[in-house]
This record gives sequence, C-alpha cells and structure tokens, in this order.
Amino acid sequence: MSKQLLLTPGPTPIPEDIQKIMSKPIIHHRTPQFKEIFAESSAMLKKIFKTEQGVITFASSGTGAMEASVANVLSKSDKAIVVRGGKFGERFTEICKAYGVEAINIDIEWGQAPDPADIKRAFEANEGIKAVYLNLCETSTATVYDIKKIAAIVKETDAILVVDVISGLGSDEFKMDEWSVDIAVGGSQKGLMLPPGLAFCAISQKAWGMVDKSTLPKFYFDFKQAKKMLDKNDTPWTPAITLVIGLKKSLSLMAEAGFDNFINTHKKNAEYLRKEIKQMGLGLFSKSPSDAVTAVKVPDGIDGLELVKTIKANGVTVAGGQAALKGKIIRIAHMGSITRKDLDRGLTVIKDALKTLGYKN
Amino acid sequence: MSKQLLLTPGPTPIPEDIQKIMSKPIIHHRTPQFKEIFAESSAMLKKIFKTEQGVITFASSGTGAMEASVANVLSKSDKAIVVRGGKFGERFTEICKAYGVEAINIDIEWGQAPDPADIKRAFEANEGIKAVYLNLCETSTATVYDIKKIAAIVKETDAILVVDVISGLGSDEFKMDEWSVDIAVGGSQKGLMLPPGLAFCAISQKAWGMVDKSTLPKFYFDFKQAKKMLDKNDTPWTPAITLVIGLKKSLSLMAEAGFDNFINTHKKNAEYLRKEIKQMGLGLFSKSPSDAVTAVKVPDGIDGLELVKTIKANGVTVAGGQAALKGKIIRIAHMGSITRKDLDRGLTVIKDALKTLGYKN
Repeated sequence: MSKQLLLTPGPTPIPEDIQKIMSKPIIHHRTPQFKEIFAESSAMLKKIFKTEQGVITFASSGTGAMEASVANVLSKSDKAIVVRGGKFGERFTEICKAYGVEAINIDIEWGQAPDPADIKRAFEANEGIKAVYLNLCETSTATVYDIKKIAAIVKETDAILVVDVISGLGSDEFKMDEWSVDIAVGGSQKGLMLPPGLAFCAISQKAWGMVDKSTLPKFYFDFKQAKKMLDKNDTPWTPAITLVIGLKKSLSLMAEAGFDNFINTHKKNAEYLRKEIKQMGLGLFSKSPSDAVTAVKVPDGIDGLELVKTIKANGVTVAGGQAALKGKIIRIAHMGSITRKDLDRGLTVIKDALKTLGYKN
Repeated sequence: MSKQLLLTPGPTPIPEDIQKIMSKPIIHHRTPQFKEIFAESSAMLKKIFKTEQGVITFASSGTGAMEASVANVLSKSDKAIVVRGGKFGERFTEICKAYGVEAINIDIEWGQAPDPADIKRAFEANEGIKAVYLNLCETSTATVYDIKKIAAIVKETDAILVVDVISGLGSDEFKMDEWSVDIAVGGSQKGLMLPPGLAFCAISQKAWGMVDKSTLPKFYFDFKQAKKMLDKNDTPWTPAITLVIGLKKSLSLMAEAGFDNFINTHKKNAEYLRKEIKQMGLGLFSKSPSDAVTAVKVPDGIDGLELVKTIKANGVTVAGGQAALKGKIIRIAHMGSITRKDLDRGLTVIKDALKTLGYKN
C-alpha cells in the first residue's frame, strides 16, 4: 500500500482515529447500538449542512444521490435548468436525459462561475421550470458558484434549487436553510475525511412538496422510504455500517474543532495555497476559485500528464484535468484533513517536479 | 464497540486480515494501483459466481443491485414472475411495482421452496413473461431454492432468470453458467466476509440481449456504463475503494482455501448445526434448509424476542424473525468466516438462554 500524500479532491486522507474506529469488530445494523450511532451522525450532518431538515444517508457514491435528487422530485418531460460549467454539471444533464427530463442547459466556460442573471433569464425564457441543478464547487474546474445569490432568485419561483455540495461541503461556505437551498447532495470521501461509499441528501419542505407529485420510478434511492426509516433512526436497506461508524467519528472531530472553525481553516489554507502558487509564477485556472480544491494551469511547454506522474513519483498524488482539461491543469485539494503542512509538502514536490521537467520561473 | 460473536445473516464477522488491509492509508481510484486491485477482484468474483461473464461491482447494498436487475432489462408494463417465499422475494415485487412492471407472484408458504412445476405453469398461463425473479437463499426463512431445476425451465423460454444470491453465495451451491442463470445479484456483507456497501451483478449474454431493449430509466446502476468501464478495469462513478480493497483480500483468502472447499465447509457446518439443533429438541423452520443460515423455531411458551435478547446478553448476536415470523424463529448464520467453533459457542449460549427462559427439553 502506498505512503503517498493524497492531495486529490476525493478520496482525501483518512485520519487515524477514523480508520481505527472503522476497523473495530463490525456490529449489526438492526441494534440499539447502531441506531444510536446513526442518530448521532444524522443529527451532526444537519450542523454541517446548516439545516434543520433531516439528512438522508445512502450507501452509494455521490452520483447515486445526484440521481436521487432528480428521480424523487421530477416527472417525465419536466423541465429543469442545469448549469454546465464542468464534468459534474454535465452529469446532472446526463441524469435528466436518462429520466426523460428536459434539461435547459446554461453552458458556461469551464473555470467560470455562472452569472446569477443568466439563471433569472432562463426562468423568464422558459415556462414551467421545476428545478435548477448546479454545483457548489464544480470539482472538475475547482470553481465555486455563488449559491446564495442564485438561491435568492430560485426562491421567488415554484422551482426548487438542487446543489451538489459533494466536494464543497466543509470547505466552501454553505448555508442550506439560510440561503433557501432545497436539496443539497453530499458525499463521504471529500471534506468528511471518509472513504467513498456514503452519499447524503438534505431536503427542504419545498422539495418534499414535489416528492409527492413526482412520478419517476425509484426504489433504492427513494426519499420517502429513507425518511420514514430515518425518523426511527434506521435505514430501509442495509447501511454501509463501517462507513456510518466512521461518519460519526468524523463529524465528532469536526464538531470538536467547531464546524465554522473547520471551514475557516480551509479558507485560510486555500488562500495560502493560491498565494504560493502565484509566487511560483503559475496561474490559477478558475476565475472563482473554490476553498476545497485549487486548479493550477500547467505552464506552457510542460506536459501536464508527465507533471502529475512526476509529482506522484515523489510521493504526492494530485489530480490532473478531466475531459477537455486533460493535461492542461493539475488540481490540488485542501479539503478534509489536509493541513497547511501537507500543502507545503505538496508545493515543494510540485516545484521540484516542474524543475525536473524543465520549467523555469 | 461490542465483543459480540456475530452469527447474523449479514453482516458477518470480518477476518482480521481483511480489516487490516482496509485500514491502510486510502489510495486514489483512478490509479494503476487501484485498477490492478479492481481487475483482480473482478476476475476472482467470476470464480465464486462460477461464470465466464463479467461481474459488475456497485457501491451500494444488495437492494441496489436487485433494482438494477429490473431497471436494466425490462420496460414499463413488462410481465415478470416473482417467487415470493419471504421478505426478499417480496422485495422483487416491490421493485417491479415501483417501475410499472407487472409482477406475476408465485406465493409460497414461508419456509417452503418453490415447486419448479409452478414456474412452468406460470409460463403456460401467461403470455410474454420477460423474466423470473427469485432468491437462491431466501434469507428471511433460511430456505434454499432449487435454482438448477428452475433454470432448466426458464432456459427453454425467451425469459431470463434473475437470482438474488446475496446470502447464499459462498455457502449454498450455485453455478451460474452451468445452470444457465442470467443475472446473479450478490452483496458484500454475507459469505464474502466484508462490511456492507458493495453489490454485484453477473450478467449472461441472454440478459445483455435484453439490456438493449430495456426502456426503464437508470443511471447510477446502469449496466452498460458499468460494463464499459469494467472492460477497462475501472468504474463509472467513484467506487467504494476500501471495500474493493477488502474484496480482493476476501476473495484471495477464499481462493487459497479453494472456492469449492470453502462451500463444502459451510455445507458441513450447516449440517452439523441442524443436527445439534434437533438434538436440543428444537425444530427447523425451513422445509428446504439453506447452508448459509438456519432458522430455528422458537419453542412453545418461550418469548422469541426475549430469547434473542438473552442470547445477546451472553455475547452472541443471532437474528430474529422478520414480519410475520417476528418472535417465532431465530436465525443462526454459518456463512462467511463463521467457524464450527463459533457455532459451538453459539449453541452453548442458545442452550443456556433457553434454560434461563424456562425451556425444558
């Protein structure tokens, strides 16, 4: 197994205390002992989503919960606005397509954040929009969107706002209830410092109002089944027991630090990294950089794929670019348990790798 | 955390070697290192399913893969035969209902196995059956079905045979290709000695022929997306990395023992347990007992719920009955890593608990 420092935007390194508790002898899920753990995790999830609403936990990766946020609220031929500013915005459109939902795509240049006015215009130009789908942090471009402003627009309509906070949660500012977000979709392997395998949906009363009207088929990801059991501190299907046990620990660690302190630390670390990157003469890819992950432009004359490999050979794993950005950017995560010290190690290795590949600042 | 001996039909105890490897520092999934692990796991899965077909791994519990076995092959208003002999047979009917598939239910008394002739008659009585859904081991009643005979009937039709092998795999005899099973649905937390969170679908060529015609919506559980990536030793969505790493270890341990030896050991342990149970003057609930789990009738005058609690208070966790069987049976698993010695400990504790509750043999 590798002794690599993971600076990837999921999975992120798992603190030893969490690893340890997850490797204790497994317990059965239909027991008071597990129900208590699940109840405590579910209660703490509300704190990080900043909501009073129940947060559903699925045994799946984040994409499953993204699908749930479509299948549970819409019906065939419904119209939904999708902001496509990267790979994960595109995923919402693909899910809509799979379900026969008409996606009205707002395509923005990768690395840009959407202009809230464009969302307003899309509502004006299209009758009967039922939902708006977008990301808090578009992980593929390391770009944070202004959810607060967009939510204020969607709030004035009959539509609901669905935000993928998978990579942003715990790093980028997010206030579900205060901002009036209707569904927030999370995942375990990013800011929550866990292995992948858990996904979350926090659901507003406005969204629940649409759940009853939705006629799209669903079963495993059925909100109503999950909510009915959540109210009894239980799950309809076998939960990912060890990951839920890890979740309780992870959220406890965050609560000890203070959820807001946790987010502030990431904000500061992100600012620090961006400053250091600029001092190396490198450019940031995003026009609206996220505090969860930073995308750095690969300088001219340097092979981006080689750069990722060279960094890895020196003990640090960063992510490259996806799709059209392949070879053009590297992405350095600073979410979850990643510390300032980790970032310093990453920066040193990146600097050396660039030098090895002939980069001169 | 508990020092209970888990004799429950999922989760089952996780061997230390598997725990250990899962708690090493996490690695990224889009790396040659993970792809190799995933490739080796996928190859070994074929051995245990006894198939030459690719086996898809999902990050979900078994129910997700059950849903996948409906959504990927059928279309709205299609007809499917479902054998309902317990809670997990019923689940297939519920999934069909959620997708607008017409379930033709063959209801059998709980604890009985289906008569293959009834499946033949259902085909004769109904035109256009597209699929037959049933369990290898109906976990809720600890009953094994004669899949070989039923498969021989379905093979002669245009329909496919879908078998939930979630609890039976690794304990009850199962030969996917030799018997002509079309989709086999598995899970991680039973015979595979892992935490819950992985599910599997092995898919025959006959079933793939139906995938192209299916119009039901799917995304996260889409067979085609998963297969396309499986062919590259990859997954379309973030896999449950730690569980896949555990899976490789678990399958390696089984391969070392020999897959057939592994199953034979469970067969012998099951026979041993049934003999001992009878010698205690207790009755078996199932008319066709599984080699994965045994259901024992709670004797007259004993409170079944109290019995489970008393057993637990003495360090052993067994499962009670579900739905109509609540309080009427206890279920003792002998799948996965559960040994003869574990069963002996279980038997001693059960005997003592019965005595405490006033049972006289």
